Amino acid sequence: MSRKIIIDTDPGQDDALAILMALASPELDVLGITAVAGNIPLALTSINIRKVCEVANRRDVKVFAGCARPMVRKLFTAEYIHGATGLDGYDLPEPEMPLQAMDGVDFIIETLRAEEPGSVTLCTLGPLTNIGTALSRAPDIAARVKEIVLMGGGCFEGGNVTPSAEFNIYVDPEAAEIVFTAGMPIVMLPLDATHKVLTTGARIAAMRALGTRTGEVAAGWLEFFERFDERKYGTDGGPLHDPNVIAYLLEPQLYGGRFCNVEIETGSALTVGETVVDWWGVTDRPANALFLRDVDAEGFFALLTERLARL
Amino acid sequence: MSRKIIIDTDPGQDDALAILMALASPELDVLGITAVAGNIPLALTSINIRKVCEVANRRDVKVFAGCARPMVRKLFTAEYIHGATGLDGYDLPEPEMPLQAMDGVDFIIETLRAEEPGSVTLCTLGPLTNIGTALSRAPDIAARVKEIVLMGGGCFEGGNVTPSAEFNIYVDPEAAEIVFTAGMPIVMLPLDATHKVLTTGARIAAMRALGTRTGEVAAGWLEFFERFDERKYGTDGGPLHDPNVIAYLLEPQLYGGRFCNVEIETGSALTVGETVVDWWGVTDRPANALFLRDVDAEGFFALLTERLARL
Amino acid sequence: MSRKIIIDTDPGQDDALAILMALASPELDVLGITAVAGNIPLALTSINIRKVCEVANRRDVKVFAGCARPMVRKLFTAEYIHGATGLDGYDLPEPEMPLQAMDGVDFIIETLRAEEPGSVTLCTLGPLTNIGTALSRAPDIAARVKEIVLMGGGCFEGGNVTPSAEFNIYVDPEAAEIVFTAGMPIVMLPLDATHKVLTTGARIAAMRALGTRTGEVAAGWLEFFERFDERKYGTDGGPLHDPNVIAYLLEPQLYGGRFCNVEIETGSALTVGETVVDWWGVTDRPANALFLRDVDAEGFFALLTERLARL
Amino acid sequence: MSRKIIIDTDPGQDDALAILMALASPELDVLGITAVAGNIPLALTSINIRKVCEVANRRDVKVFAGCARPMVRKLFTAEYIHGATGLDGYDLPEPEMPLQAMDGVDFIIETLRAEEPGSVTLCTLGPLTNIGTALSRAPDIAARVKEIVLMGGGCFEGGNVTPSAEFNIYVDPEAAEIVFTAGMPIVMLPLDATHKVLTTGARIAAMRALGTRTGEVAAGWLEFFERFDERKYGTDGGPLHDPNVIAYLLEPQLYGGRFCNVEIETGSALTVGETVVDWWGVTDRPANALFLRDVDAEGFFALLTERLARL
Repeated sequence: MSRKIIIDTDPGQDDALAILMALASPELDVLGITAVAGNIPLALTSINIRKVCEVANRRDVKVFAGCARPMVRKLFTAEYIHGATGLDGYDLPEPEMPLQAMDGVDFIIETLRAEEPGSVTLCTLGPLTNIGTALSRAPDIAARVKEIVLMGGGCFEGGNVTPSAEFNIYVDPEAAEIVFTAGMPIVMLPLDATHKVLTTGARIAAMRALGTRTGEVAAGWLEFFERFDERKYGTDGGPLHDPNVIAYLLEPQLYGGRFCNVEIETGSALTVGETVVDWWGVTDRPANALFLRDVDAEGFFALLTERLARL
Repeated sequence: MSRKIIIDTDPGQDDALAILMALASPELDVLGITAVAGNIPLALTSINIRKVCEVANRRDVKVFAGCARPMVRKLFTAEYIHGATGLDGYDLPEPEMPLQAMDGVDFIIETLRAEEPGSVTLCTLGPLTNIGTALSRAPDIAARVKEIVLMGGGCFEGGNVTPSAEFNIYVDPEAAEIVFTAGMPIVMLPLDATHKVLTTGARIAAMRALGTRTGEVAAGWLEFFERFDERKYGTDGGPLHDPNVIAYLLEPQLYGGRFCNVEIETGSALTVGETVVDWWGVTDRPANALFLRDVDAEGFFALLTERLARL
Repeated sequence: MSRKIIIDTDPGQDDALAILMALASPELDVLGITAVAGNIPLALTSINIRKVCEVANRRDVKVFAGCARPMVRKLFTAEYIHGATGLDGYDLPEPEMPLQAMDGVDFIIETLRAEEPGSVTLCTLGPLTNIGTALSRAPDIAARVKEIVLMGGGCFEGGNVTPSAEFNIYVDPEAAEIVFTAGMPIVMLPLDATHKVLTTGARIAAMRALGTRTGEVAAGWLEFFERFDERKYGTDGGPLHDPNVIAYLLEPQLYGGRFCNVEIETGSALTVGETVVDWWGVTDRPANALFLRDVDAEGFFALLTERLARL
Repeated sequence: MSRKIIIDTDPGQDDALAILMALASPELDVLGITAVAGNIPLALTSINIRKVCEVANRRDVKVFAGCARPMVRKLFTAEYIHGATGLDGYDLPEPEMPLQAMDGVDFIIETLRAEEPGSVTLCTLGPLTNIGTALSRAPDIAARVKEIVLMGGGCFEGGNVTPSAEFNIYVDPEAAEIVFTAGMPIVMLPLDATHKVLTTGARIAAMRALGTRTGEVAAGWLEFFERFDERKYGTDGGPLHDPNVIAYLLEPQLYGGRFCNVEIETGSALTVGETVVDWWGVTDRPANALFLRDVDAEGFFALLTERLARL
């Protein structure tokens, strides 16, 4: 039986690959995909999700628009990484499939209330605005979530958008605080893991070598996406973030980590958005998240490429 | 032509009087009343609003349930002031009129989008959660609001729930921050005004002397409501807060104040929820709110009692 | 037997009047006067103290230079109020009496250690840098102080340099925090009291009518000093702050107030330097200061003028 | 010509080795050693420094007591690591050499003013209280310091006393803020470097194999000192921190790093004491410190052992 998931996302090239990977995986039942503002504004993320679904020939997927801005703060976007469209690197036609009329946050709430308790996993690839808003409006859903597997935060890798903060948490730290104090099971795919998953030339070549349009699209996206971090870090390839969320669902044994306490800095302008991870257990705060620090990068790329080949 | 308003409220005895006052006033067209968590939980405020409408024989009023908890923080309630029901002081039957199915936040958004721009006034009597959430989800509505007239905050009176913070702002400071930075015209009825409006024995007696059930109910509520602040402040009668919002709409000349800059403290645990009011203009921050410091208390009570007499 | 005091000060016209008042009072034994940076830099305050002593023909007073800047922050000064010299309003010759070689902080520490425990009162008229530094370097002295009577902070009056903060606390909030948590008896003369003590035309005329040079000097200073606040507040005369510290020592019955908890905001940029006064007892934090809110202004000016007449 | 240094320290076993290393090095001219409260209270650190000098047969060294507590906060000590004496692991007799009468902060100020500008290096092994206090009292000395080489902070290693903060910065973040904004050249030996320098069994054995009392003492100290971190990190040996400061002065080529901006978190309770290091240059804040991330651990231990052999 396949696992029911909701993907909450702000594509973004790496989000796009995560979506493709999920749609290619029979182990997963994608109940819906909710768009959030993050890498680029909501108007674009809600288009991009549908473009990606159409790459996978999956016009049946239900796509919803969620929150247009963070819960409290002004929106901060990252076109300097993703390009103006969010999916620069391979031109795709405007989507033909429609956006659902229902609000994305309502979809999350209603789905969790309608499905059997403990049966739905939230997979978040962007700022946690939709989830935080849903929890704020409907606190009862926390007890119905199977787990939330989220890309965000960092510990020993520090941040990327500031010295202390990773982008997804930085954009909406209040939403993150709600998520991390809601009592749901949490699995984090932080920079500590994703920075070990580099889009090297060989790995991109393997996607292109699939000889499919999907492989071509994926390679184009990644070549655009990696250029910023290659320059910054001086590496062959840049970190690939969001598909790790899907890969963890499919093959958790690729990842290693530790249950520990994670708190969100919301008060200080200097460190706002930092995920304060008590990896070494120096506080007496209870563990509230599985922090995945290690990843088998070869295994991850083998899995990703194999799934892309199915589309 | 009457003025279109939405009342957003968490009754509370003083909220209840404000609602009665509005329903008794032909100058005002109450498009709907949205419940929020605050003085007591949402489950009770959404009942209490309907009880109050039935006191006024206005089962036609549309009542909506909004947010069950603040945007980011845990809910903090005030049963120690309002009693366990929120309307202790006069027993009312369970309401027969229904709650609308639509979410209160959706009602606010859709109403502002449907009505002519600049025609709808928001009257808030509780924490700003519903309004903050609506602005967060639909930033376009800020430009469509005529003005928001809110009970909350304080300057020279300090706070009531902490030394620095007034209850409505304290309960949801992030929502308040959204409201105060949204660019809407803002009118504040802070503690500085409401602490000048005391429910003295003579004033309550005047309500009871109306000889109506409404007068009886109002007197019962106020005698319960004032006991906490009478003990705290050692005054004859306690401050009456929320009806000032409605009185200001009806007779603005009863109030005096100044346009000045108001910012919300959200970062410090010591002063969280403080409305930092630049009354003396010592900063160069631009004015964003009309801060009403003075009130003609006799005029206010004459108006309130006259309106209650109509029901 | 006279009461032993150390005056810690940053003159400033109102500091100067406080010093004159103390030197004219046989009830007080001024062990020494320590200069601190505040209204103007230390180089000037350490000169001004001596100018004032020479006005009183008291070249025997020991004057020490203390800290040139706040404990942690950059110095913020107030020449816009006091003029470039700090004593604008009456030209005085350069002082002939010397500055003591010993550091002002060392003087405070050594005096408290040398004198009988509980016999020395600290009278502070400026930022608390010298006292905070002394307590930081020699925590044992806290138990030897009789009490500290300080001009600073505010509650219902708000701040003067920012909406929330009074100048003396704002300039060195970390020093204030040390003082307020040191366990010494604290008496506060906040803006709530000093704003009731206005330098009206009649009161200044009474000083000039003394027919002495001291009266002339005092009147000249006050006429300069009040101009800023007269314009700001639209009052006849401005608040007179620092002499209240000395007046309280001489005639405490002129003042009224309440023991309550006072905490110092040091973390938030918006409210830094605020004295959070729990006047109404809404927290369970223990009282640590006598907050003087009321003052007999006529009695105060009668006392001040009578003391000036003695010089 | 030897390099003039002042060592500011709170021994602590690793401080003690740093002192021994400096005293054994003809390249360095130790003008004085100032004690500060940190690992243990000042009363003990000012004794321990002299014990260590006597191990090196250097009763001529001038030792001064500085600050007994952090500038603003309460003292937090680390007997759980260093033992009750701070030098547990090898019993040493009470020192016979005297403490200097002069205050340690005065010594730092006067020495910097007396020596040629740019000729004195500050080597700090503990909280920055003495240096911060000196800079606060005598801002002119910042321009006279050659450089400050300090053990403290961390970036990719996170903290040790909290998830975000290293002990020396955590104990006195306000002093650290003063140091990092004073404009002096700063070299940081953070946890990122010192955690690469492990006291393995072989390395301790090499010290004991010197066959000297000094080797015996050093080995005893390290075996005690490492036990806490060995248990915490599960490594053979624990990190050796403070001697890296001296090793850097002697052989800077053992270290690698980057000039970058470093700011100190002082406002947030969650992250207080964090050194926010902009290693990747994601902010536009100017570089103010050389952050040493890499170290040749074998070269370091060879140097340390060779110097100990000289005593």
